[in-house]
Amino acid sequence: MATLDTRALTKLGYGMYIVGSHDGDKLNGQIANTVFQVSSDPPTVAVSINQNNLTHEYIEKSGVFSVSVLCQAAPLPYIGGFGFKSGRDVDKLKERKYRVGESGCPLFLEFTTACIEAEVIDHLDVYTHTLFVGKVVAGEVLTEEVCMTYDYYHQVKRGTTPQAAPSYVAPQKGG
Amino acid sequence: MATLDTRALTKLGYGMYIVGSHDGDKLNGQIANTVFQVSSDPPTVAVSINQNNLTHEYIEKSGVFSVSVLCQAAPLPYIGGFGFKSGRDVDKLKERKYRVGESGCPLFLEFTTACIEAEVIDHLDVYTHTLFVGKVVAGEVLTEEVCMTYDYYHQVKRGTTPQAAPSYVAPQKGG
Repeated sequence: MATLDTRALTKLGYGMYIVGSHDGDKLNGQIANTVFQVSSDPPTVAVSINQNNLTHEYIEKSGVFSVSVLCQAAPLPYIGGFGFKSGRDVDKLKERKYRVGESGCPLFLEFTTACIEAEVIDHLDVYTHTLFVGKVVAGEVLTEEVCMTYDYYHQVKRGTTPQAAPSYVAPQKGG
Repeated sequence: MATLDTRALTKLGYGMYIVGSHDGDKLNGQIANTVFQVSSDPPTVAVSINQNNLTHEYIEKSGVFSVSVLCQAAPLPYIGGFGFKSGRDVDKLKERKYRVGESGCPLFLEFTTACIEAEVIDHLDVYTHTLFVGKVVAGEVLTEEVCMTYDYYHQVKRGTTPQAAPSYVAPQKGG
């Protein structure tokens, strides 16, 4: 019988992103670490988003999403403003600096090194989450600052992971 | 008209992995940076693999794959032994330390911090690559050493990215 130590999953490496989308004029964004490039020609990216999240609802409706790549200098309160709360309860974009991209999605301009916009070409239902695959339609480098890693967020920033995240790992008994 | 600076895609963050699979007794592994967790309950992971690769053929045949997470100390020749060449031409596992996991996939034991085994539950055809989603059936932490990031591989190790990789970005003219 194989053993499954879920701590092995915490060894996977990630960046830190704000994934944004829209429903007409309504805009939202959420913190995500699960973004990767799937193919290079044409360039496509995949994101994993919790099916309960407002951003999920917006991506389903609009068929587009944006990825704003966080830099290492992004402060915890800035990150917390896009995570641990729902756009259904608060306007996350209030007092935030952003512009609306060609896709209609918000591109976040504070503490971000690059922005990407993608049109959903396919998706997979994976239990609690949906894996959206998007064809990249726009991309822009904002700064050459060091990008934040998920590991840095945990180890240095002492950030935590909400239970709704793809990479949430329940604390192990006696661990 | 939206502009697409593909350098924006190089800002995405990754770890470094050997993705392994098998066709009966035949084993293979290849370097990949595109692995992420999709859901946490049950735990699932996604990988993007080039359709021309032998590992792709093995995952299609066996329906299982392994992910061995590389540590920062992994030397370039070790990494190169699993990349930039095909298991069709050379036996990549010759002289390598590994064991065969419950899934039948090779788990690589040198310069790795953790191993994960997964059974494919779904997949998406994305142009040149396939996105495989696997339910995690086994996981083991080998060491608490620092994991290698894709950025470290490029910036410190001066490693390069082959054209068949998901995150290959063609050099830009005048760039």
